[in-house]
Amino acid sequence: MLGNLLKPEFDELLQAKDYATIREAFSEMDAPDIAEVIEDLPPAESGIIFRILPRQLATTVFEYLPVDQQTEVVERLGTEQLVGLLNEMAPDDRTRLFEELPAEVTKRALATLKPDQLQQARQLLGYPEGTAGRFMTPRYLAVRPTITAGEALRSIRERGKGIESQSLNVIYVTDEKGVLLDDIRLPTLVMADPDIPVSELNDRQLVSILATADRTELVAMFEKYDRVALPVTDSQGVLLGVITVDDVLDVAEEKATQDIQGLGGVEALDAPYFDVGFFSMVRKRGGWLSALFLGEMLTATAMGAYEEEIAKATVLALFLPLIISSGGNSGSQATSIIIRSLALREVTLRQWWRVASRELASGLALGALLGSIGFVRILLWAHVFHQYGEHYVLVGAVVALALVGVVLYGNLVGSMLPFLLRRMGFDPAKASAPFVATLVDVSGLIIYFNVATLVFRGTLL
Amino acid sequence: MLGNLLKPEFDELLQAKDYATIREAFSEMDAPDIAEVIEDLPPAESGIIFRILPRQLATTVFEYLPVDQQTEVVERLGTEQLVGLLNEMAPDDRTRLFEELPAEVTKRALATLKPDQLQQARQLLGYPEGTAGRFMTPRYLAVRPTITAGEALRSIRERGKGIESQSLNVIYVTDEKGVLLDDIRLPTLVMADPDIPVSELNDRQLVSILATADRTELVAMFEKYDRVALPVTDSQGVLLGVITVDDVLDVAEEKATQDIQGLGGVEALDAPYFDVGFFSMVRKRGGWLSALFLGEMLTATAMGAYEEEIAKATVLALFLPLIISSGGNSGSQATSIIIRSLALREVTLRQWWRVASRELASGLALGALLGSIGFVRILLWAHVFHQYGEHYVLVGAVVALALVGVVLYGNLVGSMLPFLLRRMGFDPAKASAPFVATLVDVSGLIIYFNVATLVFRGTLL
Repeated sequence: MLGNLLKPEFDELLQAKDYATIREAFSEMDAPDIAEVIEDLPPAESGIIFRILPRQLATTVFEYLPVDQQTEVVERLGTEQLVGLLNEMAPDDRTRLFEELPAEVTKRALATLKPDQLQQARQLLGYPEGTAGRFMTPRYLAVRPTITAGEALRSIRERGKGIESQSLNVIYVTDEKGVLLDDIRLPTLVMADPDIPVSELNDRQLVSILATADRTELVAMFEKYDRVALPVTDSQGVLLGVITVDDVLDVAEEKATQDIQGLGGVEALDAPYFDVGFFSMVRKRGGWLSALFLGEMLTATAMGAYEEEIAKATVLALFLPLIISSGGNSGSQATSIIIRSLALREVTLRQWWRVASRELASGLALGALLGSIGFVRILLWAHVFHQYGEHYVLVGAVVALALVGVVLYGNLVGSMLPFLLRRMGFDPAKASAPFVATLVDVSGLIIYFNVATLVFRGTLL
Repeated sequence: MLGNLLKPEFDELLQAKDYATIREAFSEMDAPDIAEVIEDLPPAESGIIFRILPRQLATTVFEYLPVDQQTEVVERLGTEQLVGLLNEMAPDDRTRLFEELPAEVTKRALATLKPDQLQQARQLLGYPEGTAGRFMTPRYLAVRPTITAGEALRSIRERGKGIESQSLNVIYVTDEKGVLLDDIRLPTLVMADPDIPVSELNDRQLVSILATADRTELVAMFEKYDRVALPVTDSQGVLLGVITVDDVLDVAEEKATQDIQGLGGVEALDAPYFDVGFFSMVRKRGGWLSALFLGEMLTATAMGAYEEEIAKATVLALFLPLIISSGGNSGSQATSIIIRSLALREVTLRQWWRVASRELASGLALGALLGSIGFVRILLWAHVFHQYGEHYVLVGAVVALALVGVVLYGNLVGSMLPFLLRRMGFDPAKASAPFVATLVDVSGLIIYFNVATLVFRGTLL
């Protein structure tokens, strides 16, 4: 984890305040590795490291830190260091940081920016959170269509220094109004005849994304077109910035993390496991857990209505957990499949009806499967262990029928809830497995007792 | 969805067998868009399209098709078309296809390859599925350290034609034995003084990945280092191939899909929702559902042991679903958090003990939270609705205590199961929410009835 430096060695140097040696050791390491060392340090010490790193390296390392640690470092640095750090940061990384800073720190941070950087920062922060505009960098290279390939390469040599290498893999062709006409991959440019105008280097169809596009669309575009960078435009086609694929990989992973945690019924943690404080963790889990608990209390209320039946036929209570959990399981299967299909745009909102009919059919098949297993199990136990009384065939029938109903219902609720949530403007990934299970538990219980009342009339009840 | 061509228009052309017009329309479209049109066609017709597309375009479009459709097309094309398609495909995409082809089709496909392509294909297929070796392309550009930047650029002009543009964004420096010495980004090369040897263009630390590294490591490396491409080496440091970030984005998304479906308790579908046949869907869900059902049957067995208690105090049955579902919910939260943390390498296998102690602490806090809510609810209902008999305070105490135990237990099982699965060599994402819920249901029930027996001794029981 510590590159060329061993952890105990490093701690010793830090203790001894031997900053010269640390500085030297760091200068031989790669920025992501230094960032990893700093991630493990207490905040006060990470502040020191940023004071001793050479300025350019400090900026690069800072860009590799997770946003919550960047926030801590910013709060600890003096104005002078902040000026260096923030002004040299890539504009897209800076946007990500400003999103997370507390309001008063943002104010102080913005005050350290030079006028041109300030204008850029303001512009990027003007796009709604989660849209393409927030992920783009306005540092890219654009040329006019009339210049030649050779001139374009010269232009990169002259103007490329201040631009991130990732953003230089593609250069952009714009007209005098800034409208995007084409994009040209650097390898194409290098291999082209130097005397050909760039407008004739039509290497592939132009693909761009609107600054207002959301995260899902952004990831889907990169997945579909296999690009290293996509140009971002406004509705008039004017080039505003560039999004590079390394940022999109981060976006995709972050979205997947939120969806997985959402599916488990947790508010998104937005930080690695061990970085989330104890109380923050309890809060992020306790909220949903309490809400689900309150919902699940309806089962106690519903059961209260059947207390008499349970007293008469306690055998009924035996299969209750089995029945309602099967509904929860089938619901959780359906919801996880649909949430991911919606996230990957394999299924659109308008296809809810097609999904519902498929889920009804598979729910019927799966319910019949579980129902048969349950029926056989009850008959077997009745014969072998002489359980479930004289009406064991009826008990088996109740369990089997209830299973069909409950699994069918679970499939339907699990698959339709994500659609409903998205329709109402929420994130469909909020349709967590526990949420679906809770919804299905109450109704599953009612289905079960109603089937039992019907079948047992005249015998057990 | 259809680019410049409207869907009804296209269907008409296909019906009229007006292939010339279709060919012309397609020649103005981008490959990913053509692929999208073909995806919606029945297999027989997609075969026809591949016969009428210009050869180079056909290969590119083919590369953009999902693997299951590539398989169908391969099975339908004549040997002659197959020769063109397969020999011109990018080697990494070809590996992906060969992984999925039925054995006899693979044989036929391999037979169409030219000797050099055959050797490549055999080599790539030699790496275990899911390892970096399977995702790399052996087409890249390597130069010796002694040549100058200008000569390296000339080398790209001469030898770059047959290499995918993505793989040309970085060029590699190797010694005479093929050992990787450095990688140089194309923008750096373009901006460099043409007379400087490439060995002096030390733009950043070299990062490479072993051919045997797994998917998780691959994605983590790209995320950490923000690269557009990573070189793949053997254990001796010999450069074997290159992996580009667009493929890694696909890998990351595929892995997230499998994890989300796994968490929901579904076998990975490996295809978009509507592309999975009805029976395949029922099979992929029925397997886990039946296994969970069999496990959940233990609840019926366990309940059987407490039938007498239930008969004496039916009030006990009322809160059963509430209690066990709370354990399932807290377990599903813990498992989703840990699965994702393991996948992102935020938490390592050896940290299981730190995780266990954290989860015990938060389980205690969450259990106390739910317990208090439950206790208040029971007291409230007892006063307002005169429910739960004269011993309602004891009932409240049983529910509260059981909740603490069950939530604690749920947290522990949910967080430790992924570790246990990985330790045993399985995918931790197999620790689905329904799986955890089933494990917790049985034990939750036993905890509940034991607490009840203890507290109610001398009163209700």
